[in-house]
Amino acid sequence: MDHNLESAADALLRARYGEADAPADIAMNAVIATLLAHRSVRHFAPDPLPPGTLETLVAAAQSAATSSNLQCWSVIAVESPERRARLAKLAGNSGDFVARAPLFLCWLADLSRLDRLAEAEGRTLEANAYLEAFMVALVDAALAAQNAAVAAESLGLGIVYVGALRNRPEAVAEELALPPGCVAAFGMAIGHPDPARPAAIKPRLPQSVVLHRERYGSAAEGEAIARYDETLSAFSRAQGMAADSWTGRVLDRLGTAAALRGRERMREILKGLGFGLR
Amino acid sequence: MDHNLESAADALLRARYGEADAPADIAMNAVIATLLAHRSVRHFAPDPLPPGTLETLVAAAQSAATSSNLQCWSVIAVESPERRARLAKLAGNSGDFVARAPLFLCWLADLSRLDRLAEAEGRTLEANAYLEAFMVALVDAALAAQNAAVAAESLGLGIVYVGALRNRPEAVAEELALPPGCVAAFGMAIGHPDPARPAAIKPRLPQSVVLHRERYGSAAEGEAIARYDETLSAFSRAQGMAADSWTGRVLDRLGTAAALRGRERMREILKGLGFGLR
Repeated sequence: MDHNLESAADALLRARYGEADAPADIAMNAVIATLLAHRSVRHFAPDPLPPGTLETLVAAAQSAATSSNLQCWSVIAVESPERRARLAKLAGNSGDFVARAPLFLCWLADLSRLDRLAEAEGRTLEANAYLEAFMVALVDAALAAQNAAVAAESLGLGIVYVGALRNRPEAVAEELALPPGCVAAFGMAIGHPDPARPAAIKPRLPQSVVLHRERYGSAAEGEAIARYDETLSAFSRAQGMAADSWTGRVLDRLGTAAALRGRERMREILKGLGFGLR
Repeated sequence: MDHNLESAADALLRARYGEADAPADIAMNAVIATLLAHRSVRHFAPDPLPPGTLETLVAAAQSAATSSNLQCWSVIAVESPERRARLAKLAGNSGDFVARAPLFLCWLADLSRLDRLAEAEGRTLEANAYLEAFMVALVDAALAAQNAAVAAESLGLGIVYVGALRNRPEAVAEELALPPGCVAAFGMAIGHPDPARPAAIKPRLPQSVVLHRERYGSAAEGEAIARYDETLSAFSRAQGMAADSWTGRVLDRLGTAAALRGRERMREILKGLGFGLR
């Protein structure tokens, strides 16, 4: 392996897992280095994207697997500053980078295209009324989006997923003129990272916590999670953020239904947007 | 750009979109070339994977974005031939390659870890009982899996997603000893592609059908989809498969609830596995 790539890989793994939990003997190449180097970029330079960038990201997205080739996703590229500002407002406290990134992608779980296809043939798609169909659309959208994220990062761009686009799904659907059977699953802000405010690689759980062999096992996870609580606290301190433990953040985020800030209505909202969810 | 990379890129785009719809002026590099070259591999050579491969794929997976850093996913690496054979049976007609690939990954939407974390603190996670939490877990699992897929392909391995792992979720949960709040979202068979039976790049819808600008628009999609029906039929003929149109396949796959082959019970199944889905 190229020596520079190897030492870069070591640094990436230490950043991702902390010193104690960085796995050794990882295979490395330019693609894997790009994947390991992911960080959520929330500060963008004002520069526009090079011509062809959007088409490149969409080609990457469409090259991802899709369940039974149904391709139950779409993406809306929002470049208008006014629309980005309105979406930023709908996404609540994620507002700043949605408004500032030159490109905001809205990734849609989209069963509507298949419904239109069937309608043109004088048919209806019974299966679309089931939770399974929604799950297929959501997974399709996520696989596509992740390929686009990787492609963007390989071009030196920064991205951040915006789950807060689910805070006000009906208003987002109206803003984007979504047909029934179509919902914005999440957004993605894309742009040139602001060199003055570089983003850091966030540590994740030790591999032993998420990777199981043959069958699920959680007997040893407590100790590894305690170590991760420390790793993440240290990371947060180094970033000048509140040094909460991971455990504390999980409790804050999911401890009460109220913490979902409206998303506790998701089932009702999705039904209103035309998903059967049976 | 490197000339070889450029001509490879042109060939990849023509394979992905057909001659008429291949986008021009795509940005290209080794990462994007890997993404565009994806194909579902269903025929594997018997060779084992190189040491460290699994850890590499998991490091890539964990480097993907995860909603609020909640990391609501896990993965089970199944290498035992007996267990692969049993899972192959549960996955019905996807059986052959699940049993033959040296590595089968079961990607889990996993809220159970967070529940255990809260329980250890004497708390419960109210929000986990909502559909939104399940959606977060499903998207987390998909983003992670796609990074692993890309990493595997960059190493010259082949992969195929196995949605059929959702045909019998309760039996799969029992086989894998999944705790409540945990479900196998999909599988992924991984191995060295059998050089004697190479897989082809499957054409996708024209970009104009899935990519919208500023707002959703479907006025012009009919013509593009008709063209895609032809592209996909020609591809299927060339592959020696039945030359159904895409429209025909969509109607077959989703026209009736019975075509879901048990997955029409998904909501009830997931509730039985401990997801509230409120």
